[in-house]
Amino acid sequence: MPRPVPPLRIALIGHGFMGAAHSQGWRVAPRFFDLSARPEMTLLVGRQAAGVEAAAARWGWAETATDWRAAIEREDIDVVDIVTPGGSHAEMAIAALQAGKHVLCEKPLANTLEEAAAMAEAAERTGANVFAMIGFTYRRVPAAAFARDLVRSGAVGEVRQVRAAYLQDWLYDAEAPLTWRLQKEHAGSGALGDLGAHAVDLSQFITGQKVAGVSGILNTFVEERPLPESASERGRVSVDDAALFTARFDGGAIGSFEATRMATGRKNSLRIEVSGSLGAIAFDLEDYNSLGFYDATAPGTRQGFTDIMVTEPEHPYMSAWWPTGHALGYEHGFVHQARDFVEAVTEGRQPEPSFADGYQVQRVLDGVQRSAEHCSAWTATG
Amino acid sequence: MPRPVPPLRIALIGHGFMGAAHSQGWRVAPRFFDLSARPEMTLLVGRQAAGVEAAAARWGWAETATDWRAAIEREDIDVVDIVTPGGSHAEMAIAALQAGKHVLCEKPLANTLEEAAAMAEAAERTGANVFAMIGFTYRRVPAAAFARDLVRSGAVGEVRQVRAAYLQDWLYDAEAPLTWRLQKEHAGSGALGDLGAHAVDLSQFITGQKVAGVSGILNTFVEERPLPESASERGRVSVDDAALFTARFDGGAIGSFEATRMATGRKNSLRIEVSGSLGAIAFDLEDYNSLGFYDATAPGTRQGFTDIMVTEPEHPYMSAWWPTGHALGYEHGFVHQARDFVEAVTEGRQPEPSFADGYQVQRVLDGVQRSAEHCSAWTATG
Amino acid sequence: MPRPVPPLRIALIGHGFMGAAHSQGWRVAPRFFDLSARPEMTLLVGRQAAGVEAAAARWGWAETATDWRAAIEREDIDVVDIVTPGGSHAEMAIAALQAGKHVLCEKPLANTLEEAAAMAEAAERTGANVFAMIGFTYRRVPAAAFARDLVRSGAVGEVRQVRAAYLQDWLYDAEAPLTWRLQKEHAGSGALGDLGAHAVDLSQFITGQKVAGVSGILNTFVEERPLPESASERGRVSVDDAALFTARFDGGAIGSFEATRMATGRKNSLRIEVSGSLGAIAFDLEDYNSLGFYDATAPGTRQGFTDIMVTEPEHPYMSAWWPTGHALGYEHGFVHQARDFVEAVTEGRQPEPSFADGYQVQRVLDGVQRSAEHCSAWTATG
Amino acid sequence: MPRPVPPLRIALIGHGFMGAAHSQGWRVAPRFFDLSARPEMTLLVGRQAAGVEAAAARWGWAETATDWRAAIEREDIDVVDIVTPGGSHAEMAIAALQAGKHVLCEKPLANTLEEAAAMAEAAERTGANVFAMIGFTYRRVPAAAFARDLVRSGAVGEVRQVRAAYLQDWLYDAEAPLTWRLQKEHAGSGALGDLGAHAVDLSQFITGQKVAGVSGILNTFVEERPLPESASERGRVSVDDAALFTARFDGGAIGSFEATRMATGRKNSLRIEVSGSLGAIAFDLEDYNSLGFYDATAPGTRQGFTDIMVTEPEHPYMSAWWPTGHALGYEHGFVHQARDFVEAVTEGRQPEPSFADGYQVQRVLDGVQRSAEHCSAWTATG
Repeated sequence: MPRPVPPLRIALIGHGFMGAAHSQGWRVAPRFFDLSARPEMTLLVGRQAAGVEAAAARWGWAETATDWRAAIEREDIDVVDIVTPGGSHAEMAIAALQAGKHVLCEKPLANTLEEAAAMAEAAERTGANVFAMIGFTYRRVPAAAFARDLVRSGAVGEVRQVRAAYLQDWLYDAEAPLTWRLQKEHAGSGALGDLGAHAVDLSQFITGQKVAGVSGILNTFVEERPLPESASERGRVSVDDAALFTARFDGGAIGSFEATRMATGRKNSLRIEVSGSLGAIAFDLEDYNSLGFYDATAPGTRQGFTDIMVTEPEHPYMSAWWPTGHALGYEHGFVHQARDFVEAVTEGRQPEPSFADGYQVQRVLDGVQRSAEHCSAWTATG
Repeated sequence: MPRPVPPLRIALIGHGFMGAAHSQGWRVAPRFFDLSARPEMTLLVGRQAAGVEAAAARWGWAETATDWRAAIEREDIDVVDIVTPGGSHAEMAIAALQAGKHVLCEKPLANTLEEAAAMAEAAERTGANVFAMIGFTYRRVPAAAFARDLVRSGAVGEVRQVRAAYLQDWLYDAEAPLTWRLQKEHAGSGALGDLGAHAVDLSQFITGQKVAGVSGILNTFVEERPLPESASERGRVSVDDAALFTARFDGGAIGSFEATRMATGRKNSLRIEVSGSLGAIAFDLEDYNSLGFYDATAPGTRQGFTDIMVTEPEHPYMSAWWPTGHALGYEHGFVHQARDFVEAVTEGRQPEPSFADGYQVQRVLDGVQRSAEHCSAWTATG
Repeated sequence: MPRPVPPLRIALIGHGFMGAAHSQGWRVAPRFFDLSARPEMTLLVGRQAAGVEAAAARWGWAETATDWRAAIEREDIDVVDIVTPGGSHAEMAIAALQAGKHVLCEKPLANTLEEAAAMAEAAERTGANVFAMIGFTYRRVPAAAFARDLVRSGAVGEVRQVRAAYLQDWLYDAEAPLTWRLQKEHAGSGALGDLGAHAVDLSQFITGQKVAGVSGILNTFVEERPLPESASERGRVSVDDAALFTARFDGGAIGSFEATRMATGRKNSLRIEVSGSLGAIAFDLEDYNSLGFYDATAPGTRQGFTDIMVTEPEHPYMSAWWPTGHALGYEHGFVHQARDFVEAVTEGRQPEPSFADGYQVQRVLDGVQRSAEHCSAWTATG
Repeated sequence: MPRPVPPLRIALIGHGFMGAAHSQGWRVAPRFFDLSARPEMTLLVGRQAAGVEAAAARWGWAETATDWRAAIEREDIDVVDIVTPGGSHAEMAIAALQAGKHVLCEKPLANTLEEAAAMAEAAERTGANVFAMIGFTYRRVPAAAFARDLVRSGAVGEVRQVRAAYLQDWLYDAEAPLTWRLQKEHAGSGALGDLGAHAVDLSQFITGQKVAGVSGILNTFVEERPLPESASERGRVSVDDAALFTARFDGGAIGSFEATRMATGRKNSLRIEVSGSLGAIAFDLEDYNSLGFYDATAPGTRQGFTDIMVTEPEHPYMSAWWPTGHALGYEHGFVHQARDFVEAVTEGRQPEPSFADGYQVQRVLDGVQRSAEHCSAWTATG
């Protein structure tokens, strides 16, 4: 019998693709993990009544609201989970923190560096036992978490090189429409902010080193696209399709980074390879349940990249799930995130990654942007 | 807003590993698919009160019982879902069908051919609109379902060869204990029944051909193992560790089959390769989201196995889930099974695979067993 | 400066595809290996003067003859290398051995078991220091030789299972012509003899166990094919397109075998996987420079198949070649064969594999054939 | 019978690792290809008599010399093939060209940009029918040549992105000795010049676009290493261990480049991925006989990277070799280079890549070096 635990009432603001993923996280986490509190899917917030009610019925949220302030004002809400576009994050998150709610906020932390800084500051100033977390869920992919464990244990020695790329291809077709994600005023940034953020966060998470400086270029290959509402008209793409940058980490490593929506044939390939003085690690999100590990201390004739199936009960998160060899998938990262968040806030610990961590990632991305605007000149981000 | 649909009340009998998987299927299916009925997790049955109550609390079942007949006798139960060991299936499933309940029963259908025959017969004799289904969930892995679609569309031409292997390794260690799964009186069979059943069903599903005859060998590599309760004592393993057989299909194809718990390093590798007159297909459950496809009609210099990421919205089941390139995992097969079951019984269609299908698979396995007992002599199974 | 060594004069009988490969072996071996004798490409034999002279000019043979007996009768010839079709091997090889020549004979040893037995017997009866070898060159692929080394060193423990398949697809098209290879009177056998021979030899080589019994089926999918000389007429295929068999080895292992020319998309895929009590090995000839190795004694969370690039100087044959990571290819097996043959006969050692080894492989294939003719009944081959 | 063709007498200057590879090229090319001239291995030049004589005997060169001028002065020499370290190339190559010899010169063209420019100029000024070529042999890997053919045919559409990396790991061990290759005065450059040159040339060859500008960083991870002659003493490494740069091509593509000797576990991995508006290509030298190709015009559910085994007779160079599916390896690039060189100079065509091509690659590398010295500022290389 699971031990009796107090409820933790959640309000979710936003109900797009990320809303489905977060809902699945809250729903499933207590079914597989022993949690210190019981997440309750109390309130779903969306701007249009019909849409939010349909989503609440579909995903199992008890109540709905059309004004996000309802989530802040309700005393019974313990956690505000924000999955709206980046431009609204700062106002919501700061208000929630000031109201004493825990906050889980999707990446990017904000669309501007200023807002991100304000959020990080607000998270610093909360009373004791009020916590804010940013949703870099790929840290919760077991293979990625195990990669970090291997590096931390010294299995690759001193980290020297990182090659990080987040490759998607949904814009390779020049006739793909000009959605809000391709307009700077709505999205803040293009591939750099959307995909580059993950590449930077995950690289830093795995290596334990922070990006200290960058040099980069941005490119928009298709400068005009059909309007979604009228395919015969075209509008201007105002964000990058692809970003390339080199980096130096504060621990001495160097790295190459790529974020692109133009890597034809690559659907959701977030690859991170770490080369160290004693070994190497190769992660690819498209190969969700595996991790490559090279042990340069093994007998010479037996060295090679070992394809570790990260499904043993001793691997991160895996004891909660299925027998060895049974695959997890994308949404499990959200289940693990829900679990880690619940455990941290219940136990009075800061969940990771913090808003400060999210702000640091944005400083790196901002550095890339500024470098690109200045002939790729080296730009400190530390 | 999801359309209002009637409830479909489920009773689940059994709460081991498969209970968790089936519970997840019932819980999640209505959150991602538009179903014609709303599955309700009404009753969980287990023999010991403490265990079943804990499981019900963990997985979200409303009530519990310790006698499986409760599930049959309650008028409000619409579906009896059986995940107990094979020896108990026949009695439960037949009683449930006779009581007018739909039945979903885990594989193997039964531990003996006689019981399986009786179950298939009972399923034949139900009144209109009472249906029985056997849980070969691997048919619901999108890559496997897409493999069947490709074959059915003629993309590989005439199917000529099948190489099917279900490889696990949890018995490679001679000190692994003598659990009930290694005792014939409890498990009925070893790797042959447990893993071979999946290999046969999935091969037949993908190719659309049935196994008409077999020749096989069985082997037990470790004949004595420590008793679970007392590692210093040893007991006799009475089932096979591995089974190998050749087969002829009713459509003219030939096949090689392997089922083993001794394939060191292979954790849950169910591989099926189909060679046809116009192409080929290669499936591996350990590579859950991919399917290999060879098109022999492509231009000669561009032929090769294409690694299709089976995550496009046009692929089976995938429009309900995440964007392109986002992985599914093991439990999604159970979600898809729940969906397919609900839709079929609600619409008055026989869900597939039927008990007759399950019985046919067991006739094949029985043929292998008898062949092995008769110097591998060819044995018709059609 | 290479040490001065005596010449070893070679006569090559036959000049098809295998003639090119053997010529390359003799030509290149002394350029990369320190040999105890210097192979001289003295005489090339072919039935038609024009053809053999062209081949000799192309490949660099000093002289030609149109009667193979010339190779036997010339006193200056030290080695007779036979690459003609199988039906001619026995007469040539026995005559050469009786004339005191060393013999290297391509596989299959002969088209009939009787001839193979006679050859093995003749090889037994030679005087001291006259040696016969059969050309299973895949033993000389560095990854295969290293696989044997790993097994012999105990790295996989007790060998329990073998899965061996030699997959080609050059007959998948029903309009491929009826060449002599598809006629029993010329070729002796089909996929079984051609490809199965390699699968059996290499499995035995790597595991150190011999096949003691088999049960098999043969199949001819396309029973009539266009005549090469007249595509509008068709003739009967009298050999198998595919062979499947199960086997037991004399050391307790069991194995599944496949040999096929119908595995659409597989060009030259000779795959051997060995599962043992402490580890496993996975070899695929299509991945020439790699070997998969699973070490079940490694720390649990770090286990997986290691993709060993078999190009380190400490790997078999590799110190003679290029730096680490630089690929070898198909013909290098013939270079290594030439080297091993020269070294053995020069040092008065029996080169491996012997004619007795070739005869044993043919007994296994004959057992498969007989099993297939007797309802797959188990057939001892030991 | 091969047609009678005139001889082409070669002098090879240098006899290290590259000497072995070039010798194998000259030796083997006429055995598999119908050449318009017959290469004769006439003269091998090395500074020390004993070494050059041993190498000549080993590799089959008819004569030797200890002064490279002998190769220039001998009237009977048609081709001067230069495989010495880069610092000596300019003097030798220019003298040979001025003497009317064809020249094949290993990369890098020279250690300085000035020398490379002089060489390119000398090659421009030769009389009619005297040609110079630089040895970027990886263009002759069939998979790379086929990649270029695919791009040229429009199969990937407009090329947008290139990700190129040449990864080796022979310096990961900080105790690896300080050879001449790690000293700027001897080697000119480190990973950038050695490996980056290949990455740039092959990217340009495949895409048909030239690098127009770069931004880069260089790094030396291990700044002091043991002296080869005295491990207890250490000397300073004066070249880069790794180079990272971003690039813009003259056709609008952007690219990321890496050259490193510190990619632990990567032995000889030259990877080039090209993303275009209609498809993509993925090449990896460690997977010598394969090419990945993604066709975005294929039916949506069947798209994926196709693993093309580049061994069909219709693939570049392959009709000369073995049946489908039989692997080639590293040295075959040198055989193909010998063939292409012989055919071009015999037919009075400029062989590719020319000295001008080599000089252009060095301007790109020089741009990277200068960018790295100027805070990664963008540097035009066009």
